[in-house]
Amino acid sequence: MADKPSIRRKGFQYERELIRLLWKKGFACLRAPASGSKAKRIIYPDLIALKNGVILVFEVKVRSKLEPIYINKEKVNKLIEFCYRAGGLGFIAVKYLGATNWRFIPIDRLEATSSGNYKITKELVEKGLNINDLIRLTRKESLLKYLNK
Amino acid sequence: MADKPSIRRKGFQYERELIRLLWKKGFACLRAPASGSKAKRIIYPDLIALKNGVILVFEVKVRSKLEPIYINKEKVNKLIEFCYRAGGLGFIAVKYLGATNWRFIPIDRLEATSSGNYKITKELVEKGLNINDLIRLTRKESLLKYLNK
Repeated sequence: MADKPSIRRKGFQYERELIRLLWKKGFACLRAPASGSKAKRIIYPDLIALKNGVILVFEVKVRSKLEPIYINKEKVNKLIEFCYRAGGLGFIAVKYLGATNWRFIPIDRLEATSSGNYKITKELVEKGLNINDLIRLTRKESLLKYLNK
Repeated sequence: MADKPSIRRKGFQYERELIRLLWKKGFACLRAPASGSKAKRIIYPDLIALKNGVILVFEVKVRSKLEPIYINKEKVNKLIEFCYRAGGLGFIAVKYLGATNWRFIPIDRLEATSSGNYKITKELVEKGLNINDLIRLTRKESLLKYLNK
């Protein structure tokens, strides 16, 4: 009987699933090393995807239940700094187990909670971008439209 | 007495040194996970650095002696494919132990050997870009000049 994988390993499993999907769609991808946290003061997002010179930066959240997702403000601030340095667009990549599709929520749509942390409601996930929206962002005209909206 | 670190660990140590340098210069960086090779058919370079929407992709080579560096053609081809997908510029990042500075050799300058592999001569390393040249590449006007040269 197989062991139940640890939460950390399970997270990696879904990150790899997302990488395979992005790779199939023509992106170059890189995920952060597990030992990344050893390098002090240096920020690593979970995953980045690159296409046509467009930089997409992701934190990956996998949830077993269809409930709101809370994200630590330090995590969001780090994602924002990474995107600022890179000149990239930041997203929370969300997968609800059982759902087939990933949803990508732009970081500027996150809702602040009274504690200063961030929240993604079920509705925000439903209105999130899908994989084809991400591909459209990598076409230059679309990116300009997105940034000017 | 400390153990002599394995070659693999030593490689990581210099990758981290390079990341710290790039980070200090304002780049966002990501290095490939050690377990990257588990994801079949997906290509990971050693390191990427991002700034102002410019994507730099690196294979890292550290050598104890000032001698030519040979690089497997499959490795170079993978780096080229990653760069093509990403819309990025590929480099071999070279550090000779004892030398203070890193040198960055654009992949299109590599010399093919009779076996189809690639070679970086000492002279090619000396003519390589330095960290300030990389920063200049992330300014849009310079990048256009670089691509048109």
